[in-house]
Amino acid sequence: MARWEPDSRDRLRQAALDLYGERGFENTTVAEIAKRAGLTERTFFRHFADKREVLFAGSEALEELLVRTVADAPAAVAPLDAVTAGLEALGEVLPERAETSRRRQAIISANADLQERELIKLASLSEALAGALRDRGLGDAPANLVAEIGIAVFKTAFERWIGEGEERDFAQVVRESMSELKALAVSFTSS
Amino acid sequence: MARWEPDSRDRLRQAALDLYGERGFENTTVAEIAKRAGLTERTFFRHFADKREVLFAGSEALEELLVRTVADAPAAVAPLDAVTAGLEALGEVLPERAETSRRRQAIISANADLQERELIKLASLSEALAGALRDRGLGDAPANLVAEIGIAVFKTAFERWIGEGEERDFAQVVRESMSELKALAVSFTSS
Repeated sequence: MARWEPDSRDRLRQAALDLYGERGFENTTVAEIAKRAGLTERTFFRHFADKREVLFAGSEALEELLVRTVADAPAAVAPLDAVTAGLEALGEVLPERAETSRRRQAIISANADLQERELIKLASLSEALAGALRDRGLGDAPANLVAEIGIAVFKTAFERWIGEGEERDFAQVVRESMSELKALAVSFTSS
Repeated sequence: MARWEPDSRDRLRQAALDLYGERGFENTTVAEIAKRAGLTERTFFRHFADKREVLFAGSEALEELLVRTVADAPAAVAPLDAVTAGLEALGEVLPERAETSRRRQAIISANADLQERELIKLASLSEALAGALRDRGLGDAPANLVAEIGIAVFKTAFERWIGEGEERDFAQVVRESMSELKALAVSFTSS
């Protein structure tokens, strides 16, 4: 890949976020995104399958990193600690500025199809995480439970991280949410 | 509503589950469902908006019961205990036999549109639960976290409840999953 390629990709993503924010996802064309980025449609399609994929292109890298970090945690590490390590690592592949994620999230929240797509991506993330936990020797039901809890913490931490006035990095926010989970679980009566 | 109506509704639902299982959701028409149930299409549309809604018609009752049970828990009850009570109550509105839910789930798993619909219903359930928790005085972020954990436990308990060979009622399976959550949370290092 030529040296300028990563820059094109980022310019296309920024142009798309700008346009989706200005005129709505539905009312934006690939031609307009390419033009705003000062590139051709052909270059757009070298990077993204369609205008929706601009918003979801990072999710494979995210899933891969989460699964790998959970798999790499030493065998003695408790399942939720392995998941915490995996979620903390995601700070590396999320956009550097929470502002970018906040804009992306606002666009998704305004469109039912994009919301569905987001839910499907999260369900896939949960399945991949459950697989990584089974590989660590967890049974089916506990692996599913821990994976779903991991996704619950991810969603909560993510919302908090993109919140106005939040200055901490993603890993710190994950640790806070995990601490809250522990405090909540300890305070309730195991039924 | 006439006295025979609830019976029509149940016959339509059974006929739909049978046909979706036999020939697939996509290949079944409302006319065929009505015929199998020995009823007219007009009666079908008195009960369900379309053939998809046969599968999701119970979800409003489920959401309503969950929210009400959480709201009704005494103020001193810990958030996760209130959610546990809410999830246990859902056994009352789930089909009496896990077999019916198992067949429904198999139909949903075989169709991408139905899966999306299911994910959207669960996201709505999570939002409603978070609202009930905020009404109990929880802040936004903890309310979201507890709600997402509640849905995680619900999904895990539901999968377990519809599993082959599972004989316990839904409330018992919920309590088991909540106990597992607590054990998992206690064993990990609060980060």
